[in-house]
Amino acid sequence: MAASGAAPAETPTVEAVARGEADRPHSAVVRFGADTPLRLDAGGVLTSFQVAYQTYGMLNAARSNAILICHALSGDQHAANVNPVTGKPGWWETLIGPGKPIDTGRFFVICSNVLGGCMGTTGPSSTAPGGRPYGLELPVVTIRDMVRAQAMLVDHLGIEKLLAVVGGSMGGMQVLQWAASYPERVFAAFPMASAARHSAQNIGLHEVGRQAIMADPDWRGGRYLEEGTSPRRGLAVARMAAHITYMSEASLHRKFGRRLQEREDRTFSFDADFQVESYLRHQGEAFVDRFDANSYLYVTRAMDYFDLAADYGGVLANAFKGTRTRFCVVSFTSDWLFPTSGSRAIVHALNAAGAPVSFAEIESDKGHDAFLLEEPELFAITRGFLDSAARTLGVS
Amino acid sequence: MAASGAAPAETPTVEAVARGEADRPHSAVVRFGADTPLRLDAGGVLTSFQVAYQTYGMLNAARSNAILICHALSGDQHAANVNPVTGKPGWWETLIGPGKPIDTGRFFVICSNVLGGCMGTTGPSSTAPGGRPYGLELPVVTIRDMVRAQAMLVDHLGIEKLLAVVGGSMGGMQVLQWAASYPERVFAAFPMASAARHSAQNIGLHEVGRQAIMADPDWRGGRYLEEGTSPRRGLAVARMAAHITYMSEASLHRKFGRRLQEREDRTFSFDADFQVESYLRHQGEAFVDRFDANSYLYVTRAMDYFDLAADYGGVLANAFKGTRTRFCVVSFTSDWLFPTSGSRAIVHALNAAGAPVSFAEIESDKGHDAFLLEEPELFAITRGFLDSAARTLGVS
Repeated sequence: MAASGAAPAETPTVEAVARGEADRPHSAVVRFGADTPLRLDAGGVLTSFQVAYQTYGMLNAARSNAILICHALSGDQHAANVNPVTGKPGWWETLIGPGKPIDTGRFFVICSNVLGGCMGTTGPSSTAPGGRPYGLELPVVTIRDMVRAQAMLVDHLGIEKLLAVVGGSMGGMQVLQWAASYPERVFAAFPMASAARHSAQNIGLHEVGRQAIMADPDWRGGRYLEEGTSPRRGLAVARMAAHITYMSEASLHRKFGRRLQEREDRTFSFDADFQVESYLRHQGEAFVDRFDANSYLYVTRAMDYFDLAADYGGVLANAFKGTRTRFCVVSFTSDWLFPTSGSRAIVHALNAAGAPVSFAEIESDKGHDAFLLEEPELFAITRGFLDSAARTLGVS
Repeated sequence: MAASGAAPAETPTVEAVARGEADRPHSAVVRFGADTPLRLDAGGVLTSFQVAYQTYGMLNAARSNAILICHALSGDQHAANVNPVTGKPGWWETLIGPGKPIDTGRFFVICSNVLGGCMGTTGPSSTAPGGRPYGLELPVVTIRDMVRAQAMLVDHLGIEKLLAVVGGSMGGMQVLQWAASYPERVFAAFPMASAARHSAQNIGLHEVGRQAIMADPDWRGGRYLEEGTSPRRGLAVARMAAHITYMSEASLHRKFGRRLQEREDRTFSFDADFQVESYLRHQGEAFVDRFDANSYLYVTRAMDYFDLAADYGGVLANAFKGTRTRFCVVSFTSDWLFPTSGSRAIVHALNAAGAPVSFAEIESDKGHDAFLLEEPELFAITRGFLDSAARTLGVS
């Protein structure tokens, strides 16, 4: 009743909460030790690392109803629960939940933070065995390394075969890598808004973001966590640049046009006169609170290095040779970051490999982000594809 | 013959040469004083400013063969001569010269540095009346202000009416502004790869560049010239980001693909493994040597503010009401920065205004930069349009 004498607990900042996730996340964690080393494409081995993950729904007795969700560059394992850092809904709650296209009343859904991330799976902001954060001493990781770590998690959960692996953008790259590396463990694969290799344009866009981060003197050669600084401005610029690429000209025009931000007329200054400027600045700042700058370097680099055909003699079809996995490939008409041509190349390779594949280019003006948004056609396709897979496997 | 005792003169750096251009350029300069003030859209007046310009060819006795060239964001007045800063050919030597589509054997060609620029026309790096560089104390300028200054230059040269005004990208914006502000002074107008207003996407892209510059601590609130610093890293990031938008995915793929830069395999690091990274880093660094960071802020802002219809009751056709100027409008299929839809909007407005206009969408995979490159169809159209205008005016 009366005011207590104790000082009120200070609410930690979003940034502070995010920092805490690296080693002690608000998620289930599985730790791997020297007995289960992770061999990396860069050479070398991780002998002590962890994977943070969320699950939704129940694994059935036959262990046949598991669906693995792979997240994109700026995503995390909180696909269908409130994000503990931002307090916002999970990034794929449009698609995942009871009665939704990825129906958690029926399926056991798993989503783990990628290797190199900052939400509890080992990444550059994790504490290294020596007691300091890894920083750039963590070896550069690849999409294949991420998938290897996920396979170890799936082993740990006692699941031999996944009903489906599903993901968009970088998540789609992981889906393709799963189908190539572990064909017998993937019954159905669903890459959307993705590609089997990162394009020159996209490598260039990533390089701009990395240079923005590394140009920030507060980056301190990657040692900012120990030095108590934060390359906020560089990371914000990287995010602003990237955010434009996730939308389409049409969606930016519809959302903002040339409307001014809470003012009657131009100020003839470098203030954020236009709503689109104000929006992008906000996107940059919000991202900095929740995402680690070095993780941004690592995860973009993993995407740059992704070129599935290169591991199979330069012929993408060879990555899927003899596969019995069924595929569904989706692209969006206004996605200029991962255009339909990239999805078509996947479909052609699957056709050449004789794999069953359906393909849809969905009409949308929402750009690359369409896969995260309300897209009824995507929902219908996802539901249909997973229903059919479940029926075939006898999952009720 | 024998070595002289004097120390050899040091070759000044490209950056030092560029700095010298702001006040004392390697170009003709016309100075305007208090008797010819320049009223700015931002309010206020410039009572002392200068315009630096180049001319090519000879003005005929009737003064009827003058063509004004308007340059783009990163351009300057050195359209058809060796650039005194970089030592490279002029940026439009593809199009301008003896016997070329803009034939300097026949036409008197004028190109001036824009207001807000850094190559001799008054801009933020120019010395203000108080003796210090303007920095951000120069009022923000608009495309219309740039055109007002150009009109004063054209007056100074004793030219009443221009045979043609020609420009691409931001140069095309100036062409449209000329046609709207001074219809009786423009016989033929040729905007290419341009738009009558800057789109939300393009404002966003500019804002990223500005934030990159202003995030650089060496920017010093715009006072870097006096403080002896230079926001090189910020400006380089801005240029890298912009450079990607000037190309197309196809041209980046053709030029670089996923080829590695002078190495056999990926280094698994954040080095510039890929040629496209190395190229972009080089573009960023080369730009910083020749361009002023504050000018980048001013000139991008002028483009953002450009919305020709807004000055005419929101109806673009009204900007051209009753005009007798003839127009040629050109766009390029792979230009996603200034897509054909923007050129079409200009053409529709000209149609509505009853103005004579021809329009060509040129098939090219070179992106926005196509207007600066070897494009035979563009050359043929330019030659044809200018020939016809010259013939009509009796210019031999």
